[in-house]
Amino acid sequence: MNEHAMLHMPESKYCFPVGEQEVVIRFRMAKEDEGAKVTLIYAGKYEFHERRQSVPMEIKYTDRLYHYYEIRLKLSDVRLAYIFQIEDINQIYYFSEDGLTESYRFEEGFYNFFQLSYINANDVMPVVDWMKQATFYQIFVDRFYMGNRAKDTSYINMKWEDQPTPKSFAGGDLRGIIEKLDYLKELGITAIYLTPIFQSLSNHKYDTIDYMTIDPQFGTKEDFAELVREAHARGIRIVLDAVFNHCSMQMRQFMDVLERGRDSRFYDWFVIHGDFPDTDACNYECFAACNYMPKLNTANDEVQDFLIQIALYWIREFDIDGWRLDVSDEISHVFWRKFRQAVKKEKADAVIIGENWHDAYPYLQGDQYDSIMNYAFTKACLDYFARGTFDAAQMAEKLNSNLMRNTEQVNHMMLNLLDSHDTHRFFTEVKKDKDKLLAAVALTMVFPGAPCVYYGTEICMEGGYDPDSRRGFCWDEDKWDKDVHAKIKELIHLRQNPIFAESDVKIYEKEQMLVVRRKYDKESLTLYVNMTAQEKHLTDMRNANVSMLSQNHAQMDACDANDEKVLVIEKMGYAIIKETAPA
Amino acid sequence: MNEHAMLHMPESKYCFPVGEQEVVIRFRMAKEDEGAKVTLIYAGKYEFHERRQSVPMEIKYTDRLYHYYEIRLKLSDVRLAYIFQIEDINQIYYFSEDGLTESYRFEEGFYNFFQLSYINANDVMPVVDWMKQATFYQIFVDRFYMGNRAKDTSYINMKWEDQPTPKSFAGGDLRGIIEKLDYLKELGITAIYLTPIFQSLSNHKYDTIDYMTIDPQFGTKEDFAELVREAHARGIRIVLDAVFNHCSMQMRQFMDVLERGRDSRFYDWFVIHGDFPDTDACNYECFAACNYMPKLNTANDEVQDFLIQIALYWIREFDIDGWRLDVSDEISHVFWRKFRQAVKKEKADAVIIGENWHDAYPYLQGDQYDSIMNYAFTKACLDYFARGTFDAAQMAEKLNSNLMRNTEQVNHMMLNLLDSHDTHRFFTEVKKDKDKLLAAVALTMVFPGAPCVYYGTEICMEGGYDPDSRRGFCWDEDKWDKDVHAKIKELIHLRQNPIFAESDVKIYEKEQMLVVRRKYDKESLTLYVNMTAQEKHLTDMRNANVSMLSQNHAQMDACDANDEKVLVIEKMGYAIIKETAPA
Repeated sequence: MNEHAMLHMPESKYCFPVGEQEVVIRFRMAKEDEGAKVTLIYAGKYEFHERRQSVPMEIKYTDRLYHYYEIRLKLSDVRLAYIFQIEDINQIYYFSEDGLTESYRFEEGFYNFFQLSYINANDVMPVVDWMKQATFYQIFVDRFYMGNRAKDTSYINMKWEDQPTPKSFAGGDLRGIIEKLDYLKELGITAIYLTPIFQSLSNHKYDTIDYMTIDPQFGTKEDFAELVREAHARGIRIVLDAVFNHCSMQMRQFMDVLERGRDSRFYDWFVIHGDFPDTDACNYECFAACNYMPKLNTANDEVQDFLIQIALYWIREFDIDGWRLDVSDEISHVFWRKFRQAVKKEKADAVIIGENWHDAYPYLQGDQYDSIMNYAFTKACLDYFARGTFDAAQMAEKLNSNLMRNTEQVNHMMLNLLDSHDTHRFFTEVKKDKDKLLAAVALTMVFPGAPCVYYGTEICMEGGYDPDSRRGFCWDEDKWDKDVHAKIKELIHLRQNPIFAESDVKIYEKEQMLVVRRKYDKESLTLYVNMTAQEKHLTDMRNANVSMLSQNHAQMDACDANDEKVLVIEKMGYAIIKETAPA
Repeated sequence: MNEHAMLHMPESKYCFPVGEQEVVIRFRMAKEDEGAKVTLIYAGKYEFHERRQSVPMEIKYTDRLYHYYEIRLKLSDVRLAYIFQIEDINQIYYFSEDGLTESYRFEEGFYNFFQLSYINANDVMPVVDWMKQATFYQIFVDRFYMGNRAKDTSYINMKWEDQPTPKSFAGGDLRGIIEKLDYLKELGITAIYLTPIFQSLSNHKYDTIDYMTIDPQFGTKEDFAELVREAHARGIRIVLDAVFNHCSMQMRQFMDVLERGRDSRFYDWFVIHGDFPDTDACNYECFAACNYMPKLNTANDEVQDFLIQIALYWIREFDIDGWRLDVSDEISHVFWRKFRQAVKKEKADAVIIGENWHDAYPYLQGDQYDSIMNYAFTKACLDYFARGTFDAAQMAEKLNSNLMRNTEQVNHMMLNLLDSHDTHRFFTEVKKDKDKLLAAVALTMVFPGAPCVYYGTEICMEGGYDPDSRRGFCWDEDKWDKDVHAKIKELIHLRQNPIFAESDVKIYEKEQMLVVRRKYDKESLTLYVNMTAQEKHLTDMRNANVSMLSQNHAQMDACDANDEKVLVIEKMGYAIIKETAPA
């Protein structure tokens, strides 16, 4: 056996409470050792030396190198002690804090068993339940729709249908979104993530001048209140963009430091290397290398309070449903811990979504964010759907790997996206192949977490890197591909199926197809994706209670024999099949 | 290569800031792959796609299965992106968030490089500096010394020199400790950890009735204030025992619940399964299975505030130097985070030491405790010194493994102990073999962190499990082994050597001896331990600047040749050698 591959970490994504008396335990082994039988041996920690229980563990996730065994345990004594028993062909081993051993002295287990020493209620990370079935729609406000035709439009400097430059203003606003809420509702959207809306000089507004003012180009607080009210009335939640890593150099506090230097009471709000900030030399920390976006010092207590009060204000006064956190990975953990405490106290089911492009486990242990924008998922989709650098087996492995980065709770809240204002549009990445786009969208709908549709994906909008991925939404329906639009709408509506609120997931490759199965009790929803050049026939649909919920280039044929059905999926096609086990 | 063995985890003990512009990065490989060359490739994350630096990594720790490569980097841009390059005999590989690959697309690194995205000042875990050179002395108060001869002694029910029972009271008190401070000072002790001193019915006082009152058996607040004052005057710090997991069933708040049940305003301070606590049925959560120690509900905000105010009171009013946290692993993480914030704000260099017997990494990431009682170290010492189940190589591996459980900062603050009031006495474990005892004590003195001498170890006190390990300290010096006492004193005084404040550590086996080397700049202190049945000769002491600082059954002989010296260590002996590299 490959002993080096074995991994367990106490109180981590390898062992975490999912309820006050329920825990999930995971154990990693090399894939080549799958012949071994893994058993969890456990007991209350004060009786472990005397008597224990055993329960077999099953493979839940599999990536390129490893099998991840998992077990969900209901506990009466929540002071859990445990070790793993690994049964090879002719030998039994034990895996404890001391690693792999051929024998184990249970009477001295208190020195080296693994433990989840107690489940304190406030250490259980809750799931924001509505995330499990949510479908997000990301709106870049300046480019979605202009609703307020009475406003001063002198700032608008591009034609709606032109390709934008970094300095373009197209005129989109909050009233535009209000007017299109029925469109979004019909599309099946249940949450909107808006890029920043606060006062700023840019079109993207990631350089905030005043966090308490809606940018006049976008509207007023009254408009925003109406947007939230009208969205809520349609069952649509609103998540705002919290740009707390940096601000605009024209924010009042930074202007004060520009003027007074060290004498400013806001000097420590920033990280300045010298007596005065020098915008030419950029002798202060800023976002990337942008001197006009000075970094806020979130190690400073006053800055922490300032930002948290902003976060609370928009929840309290406008009832928003969460915050997406810009450049969240460059902000202090101490700050995020305070932020979470405050936000969750104000509104327990407000969601907190970080913008971390990388493995964000250090932020996702229950004390900081709920989830992140899942750019690792994006990258896998590029490799599988757009570039063909992954086959179905590799894609299945990568998605399993992605799920093993975090706990089950976090996976239920991940924001899974194909693209955003910070990437090329996915439709452009797949070289305008609508079949590939649809298959990828289908995957986002069944993968654990909440899919996020970047505005215009449903009408096949194109665009390269920023600013090209931020074009104006084309509202001329005659120019839409009605079939793609209808299929995406169908996929989004699928998410109303309660199975997404409860189900387990299993992802694997079968006959060179990617298979994602969500299963709960006797029911399952299964996505089959065929990205190969061949037509695939699946003949094991022997259940009468099988139906096709959504498809592209796929059909279900009745066979001669009894109940038997054949699922045929052409190349670049997908099918989502519902099965109910026979009573 | 064993790809399965490779491990790196961003923002963890595998990558952590040690200063505002300095980071430690670690990478794990299978031991058998030590031929491979490991290089860190890094850059500021916003320039990683364009230009990068490379620096070789070196093996810092080695355990049974793995080599752990390490590098300390000083950074100008603290937004770090990095991957590992692994050069095998005929192939170069890259290890990123996507695992091992034969090529790496640097231009798309933003998707999968590792990162420490920013070092915010408040995310850097500081070391409580005095811990690096501290030597603790643990005192079980009732059994150390009775100083107050005027007190009501009617509670005393055992003769000082008798073997105690669970219900014995011997009379030790705070004035007794004050009277013995000069003894401890002379012994070299710089910190005292006292088992609980607050009002309680038991001799151990782990069942607190009133956290704001010194138990009258032990003295008064005036006595305690004097103890701290006198200890500080001698350069000795005082750490108290925070028993916050549970209290006595006679604590006022629990008594109120006993009387009023759900109507008590303290009902939610505990975890009660029913309307009233039933002490016979024990229908409430408690410590272990002890109905007289009901568990405090640290998920309750009021309980959190209550306990934190206690912690602050004893720091603010009496200037204590830290808290040892009883059964800390059963208390909520949320509570410990608040506790740390409050304690460190009150006194930045107050140390916080958890009683976690197991891998406590989830508590030691900078947001909760500073360190723990290192019982995994205790267990390794039992295996090596007492039971002989480890040889020197296995011991070296186990100690390396122990160091890899945590960050460098935490290792500097670990409380390394051979025994405590909760174990058998180490002298009893080594079957009264004084040579083994001395060698083990020597190891505690050079291992990173602070050794903790359980009262009486220096006079070879014996004792099995509780209550036998809690006997009265024998103050009749004629009964002491003067040689052992002198050697332990010498070892403790060694810790004044400034090398312990700065130095690096390297632990390995050499000629079946355990070697622990602390090194800083041109100077090193090296412990050699010989637990084999043979005499060992070390002939590579070619440096004139070599001296023996402490030893048992060892000697340094001059050789015929020039500067050459030979170190001879008999079985069950040790030597601590100081070396200064030639100028």
